[in-house]
Amino acid sequence: MIQSQNQWFETSIGLLSDPQNQRVWSVIISLFGDMAQRPNDQISGAALTRIITPMGIKPEAIRVALHRLRKDGWIESARSGRASTHYLTQYGRDQCAAVTSRIYARDPVLPQKLHVLIADGGGGQEALDEVLLLPGYIAINRTTALGYGPKPKTSHDLLALEADNFSLPGWFKTQLFPTELTNSCHALLKVVSKISDPPAGLNSAQVASLRTLIVHRWRRVVLRHPDLPPDFHPPTWRGVACRDRVFTLLDQLPLPNLAELRDPVDV
Amino acid sequence: MIQSQNQWFETSIGLLSDPQNQRVWSVIISLFGDMAQRPNDQISGAALTRIITPMGIKPEAIRVALHRLRKDGWIESARSGRASTHYLTQYGRDQCAAVTSRIYARDPVLPQKLHVLIADGGGGQEALDEVLLLPGYIAINRTTALGYGPKPKTSHDLLALEADNFSLPGWFKTQLFPTELTNSCHALLKVVSKISDPPAGLNSAQVASLRTLIVHRWRRVVLRHPDLPPDFHPPTWRGVACRDRVFTLLDQLPLPNLAELRDPVDV
Repeated sequence: MIQSQNQWFETSIGLLSDPQNQRVWSVIISLFGDMAQRPNDQISGAALTRIITPMGIKPEAIRVALHRLRKDGWIESARSGRASTHYLTQYGRDQCAAVTSRIYARDPVLPQKLHVLIADGGGGQEALDEVLLLPGYIAINRTTALGYGPKPKTSHDLLALEADNFSLPGWFKTQLFPTELTNSCHALLKVVSKISDPPAGLNSAQVASLRTLIVHRWRRVVLRHPDLPPDFHPPTWRGVACRDRVFTLLDQLPLPNLAELRDPVDV
Repeated sequence: MIQSQNQWFETSIGLLSDPQNQRVWSVIISLFGDMAQRPNDQISGAALTRIITPMGIKPEAIRVALHRLRKDGWIESARSGRASTHYLTQYGRDQCAAVTSRIYARDPVLPQKLHVLIADGGGGQEALDEVLLLPGYIAINRTTALGYGPKPKTSHDLLALEADNFSLPGWFKTQLFPTELTNSCHALLKVVSKISDPPAGLNSAQVASLRTLIVHRWRRVVLRHPDLPPDFHPPTWRGVACRDRVFTLLDQLPLPNLAELRDPVDV
């Protein structure tokens, strides 16, 4: 029985691992964001090793990534004797919190209204470039931005209008959902569809490894496209099916208990 | 009494004449468009002279302009003995007909809906440039056009959307109603406001001179701006007041009878 759980785990982790595109520091952020985002959450070095090495990542690579994350202010580490624990800094928690709702949205809220801001060649360009730094704005072209919600009360040098009843040409759909992203999404859908329902009796570290990789790969799809109604999707976009399968799997792999991860009873 | 009619006429024609900006061939088109646009309408050379010379235009200049208009296919002339008559060609009538409804619209139909077409930097640009040749389209900037009515059923490579609830920056209003046009419109409003109510007993040629100049100057204002709701107007735009006064005057100077103009009984 243990054997068959381990076999299922090996197969699944093999499908989910993507060694070409797997930056270790980024995987660690996915892990903390998924399992240890609250102020007092911490993960031991031993648990990190148990969760991450099955992805084909060496302990030395984990140490290098942790060093980088400390240097960049994401993570702090504490040591007592040979044991170490790691936790997100306030900065790290803020960064994670900023995207958590988008990553974990099962049924993303699609904008009921959209507006458009248009610059002329001259002074408005600067205003438009500023606007495009805000969340909820997408460039249509050099002088035009699509914005979520009703138009802002003041739009200064920009021509603003509320828009509906769109005709959406292929170039715009491909700009919103670039081919490379559509391909990544399709590849992830293929992977998560191949993973069969998890067997009972997986240990906490195994659940954590799988959740981390699923969240990690989904994060790299979901944060790179805007939430827009289906008529904005290119015909090849499989994001809706991919999201469904991702959350079905995450529901079947419920968040492990951090205490169990810290003091493994199951190895 | 005749003296006072003539005095009023001299004053009014003096106000309306704008020798700097008065191309004779263009004045003649205004005249035909106003008074002789139907297939069998014609105006004698003598009548043309009686109508146009009071504007400060010499008979020689009228002959030169008629020559040009014949060469350009607008007008044909017939001669019998020393008398000549002139009439619009089919081409000339078509050209006049294409703009008559806009020139004489007392209460222009404002668009209930507007749409916007947006090109990307690439292929859509050509499609947009084509669209901008159509009536009912106005350039917003190099890659964006404002269109009257609902969006077209097919818009090919263009992103199309229906727009409302506009915020309109100064640059866009000035682009629609350029300062020079706003100034011309204001100058015409000042002139037509200074002209007092026409006295009774003006002769047909006097009425024709005044109508021609009013239509001529109004034509050069009305055809150079789009019919858009007041919130698209710059604060200095006086087009609404100008139109009102123009039509009040035209109503007080009803179209003279062409037969009377041909065979003057009143000189």
